[in-house]
Amino acid sequence: MGRVYDIITDPNEDEGRAFLDRIIGKRPLFICVIGTTETAKIPGISAAGANPQITDYTPPADVELLYYGKCKSIDGVPVTPEGIPTPAIITMSALRLAEIPYIVLNAGVNVKPKTPYFEVDGKPGRDIRSGRAVENPEEIFERSLLIGRNLSGVADYLVVGESIPGGTTTSLAVLLAMGVDAEGKVSSSMPDNPHELKIRVAREGLEVAKRSIGASLANPFKAISAVGDPMIPACAGLICGAAEKIPVLMAGGTQMCSVLNVVRNLSPKVLSNLAIGTTRWIIEDKTSDIRGLVSQIAPVPILAINLNFSDSKFKGLRAYERGVVKEGVGAGGSCIAAVMKTNGLLDRYLLFREIEKNYEALLASVR
Amino acid sequence: MGRVYDIITDPNEDEGRAFLDRIIGKRPLFICVIGTTETAKIPGISAAGANPQITDYTPPADVELLYYGKCKSIDGVPVTPEGIPTPAIITMSALRLAEIPYIVLNAGVNVKPKTPYFEVDGKPGRDIRSGRAVENPEEIFERSLLIGRNLSGVADYLVVGESIPGGTTTSLAVLLAMGVDAEGKVSSSMPDNPHELKIRVAREGLEVAKRSIGASLANPFKAISAVGDPMIPACAGLICGAAEKIPVLMAGGTQMCSVLNVVRNLSPKVLSNLAIGTTRWIIEDKTSDIRGLVSQIAPVPILAINLNFSDSKFKGLRAYERGVVKEGVGAGGSCIAAVMKTNGLLDRYLLFREIEKNYEALLASVR
Repeated sequence: MGRVYDIITDPNEDEGRAFLDRIIGKRPLFICVIGTTETAKIPGISAAGANPQITDYTPPADVELLYYGKCKSIDGVPVTPEGIPTPAIITMSALRLAEIPYIVLNAGVNVKPKTPYFEVDGKPGRDIRSGRAVENPEEIFERSLLIGRNLSGVADYLVVGESIPGGTTTSLAVLLAMGVDAEGKVSSSMPDNPHELKIRVAREGLEVAKRSIGASLANPFKAISAVGDPMIPACAGLICGAAEKIPVLMAGGTQMCSVLNVVRNLSPKVLSNLAIGTTRWIIEDKTSDIRGLVSQIAPVPILAINLNFSDSKFKGLRAYERGVVKEGVGAGGSCIAAVMKTNGLLDRYLLFREIEKNYEALLASVR
Repeated sequence: MGRVYDIITDPNEDEGRAFLDRIIGKRPLFICVIGTTETAKIPGISAAGANPQITDYTPPADVELLYYGKCKSIDGVPVTPEGIPTPAIITMSALRLAEIPYIVLNAGVNVKPKTPYFEVDGKPGRDIRSGRAVENPEEIFERSLLIGRNLSGVADYLVVGESIPGGTTTSLAVLLAMGVDAEGKVSSSMPDNPHELKIRVAREGLEVAKRSIGASLANPFKAISAVGDPMIPACAGLICGAAEKIPVLMAGGTQMCSVLNVVRNLSPKVLSNLAIGTTRWIIEDKTSDIRGLVSQIAPVPILAINLNFSDSKFKGLRAYERGVVKEGVGAGGSCIAAVMKTNGLLDRYLLFREIEKNYEALLASVR
């Protein structure tokens, strides 16, 4: 385990350092891919919303926070059932502090954000227990690929994050469909990771899909179409399109493992341009195993921002140290990009101070 | 009148050269803003389609040509009633030859393109004779501004083009509403510019709007809302957002004059970062007067690519020399960007050869 500024490189320390060497001082573009899946409404699956029904509003509210410093589709900000705030607060703080430009890509949502966004004609995802979760993954992939390819002509590197409640369960199912040993390894926004429930839901979807499709789900588009979500083909397309030419930091936790597996299947030549960028809370999580997933897929480095909220004035942020939320909306990757864009001038203390300040302002505006 | 490579600088030669000095060898991003207005369906107004009813398909078909080298929403390519092809063939050739990245922004269209595009929640424009042409120009402007601002963090400069049939008539009306002497000065895709018809339509819209609004239309959003089209606030927003920081080449003919006038009203500080980039066919056009319009608005340089189709093998391209089509889909500006990106290595002969080649391939694929 190594350290570059406040970024932990683990495993593949040399590759991690090499990736950071390529992006230091360069111009990133952050892209947040948003999506929804009805899977998030199964009770107990997602904490990305105060209750399962409201998870439809989490992705638009997250990206509204990035653009306007406040949400428009809901009052306040997205919170878990116990009131812990969205990681979009971290992302917003990192992007603003380092003046990193950002755009949104709508992979398929029930509630459109009140921001500009790229449209790729994706539809919201169905409950994966139906075995037919995503209507048009190839089209979402192809159009996102065109976006990634064109953006690679202007940005030095991309940082690709996501906001999709229920996304670790759909990712689990896609990984299983494609033969990755993923049970018990995906993370959760809850400290008590509901592995049994996730596995039951994923297996049910896989059973139904295998009966109706009658064949192997090893093909990435078949797997996504059966038990995935719209975020996966959108992120995979962006990455396959951009990483032909420039580095891409895959900003997320275990959800990015299903994306990585799709990318490896469709465009193995781009793997050398990729790293996963996440938070210390993910790589230290005892209830999931991002290293175990990545090592089965491809030897890409895992980078983690060494943020620590132990000394926060706010209960809502201290909860991150208990394993609540952990990651999302590209929080970890956007902090890494902020550190690297400023040649390490921005460190974890300055990031933390900005996050505290922004959270305090948001709390004040809601009261 | 000066010359830099194959680019004519006229008037404001010094400012034109200074603008070109700032962009030479730099990384452009081309953005095509698409929109529709029911105004295009008034017989005799637009030649951007084989007949007035089919003009809805011209903008999506134009940008499909950029992405795929062929149209998906129609067979063949958009043509005038006499079969002269869309200037998107020029744009496509310039972008491909110089490897210039591009994106599409949907300002409000009746038929969505089968490409990725930025969505800003704009609606198609109504017939300006209604006096209430655009529903939400402020929202289109604000969201486009956020896009422009973020893209200015990665691109060295933007090239902003448009595809909206009927756009010179709506531009005339907006210029008149805002007090610019524009009658007889806007150009046309037809060699016989139907000024009388355009003026009649514009005046009718202005009369109706003044009666219903009961006040001055000098405010840009009031003018657009009454007699404009959705392309105008989208282009103006992109430009106001991006040109705070980077140069923007406004790629179009007299339609860009209404955009320039809106920009001057909303954000005069960005004017020093702007130039209009068009074709020789526009600046030599006897039936319109782009210099007379620009000189009333702001002293921005006009740059024109010195393309000449006289020696084309194809009747469809030779017709450009008779004043058919002339400009559109950012054809002139994209050629200027191609010349400048390659430090003049790409000249008008290479551009012409590529255009001939692509047109020949398109003709062959349609037969």
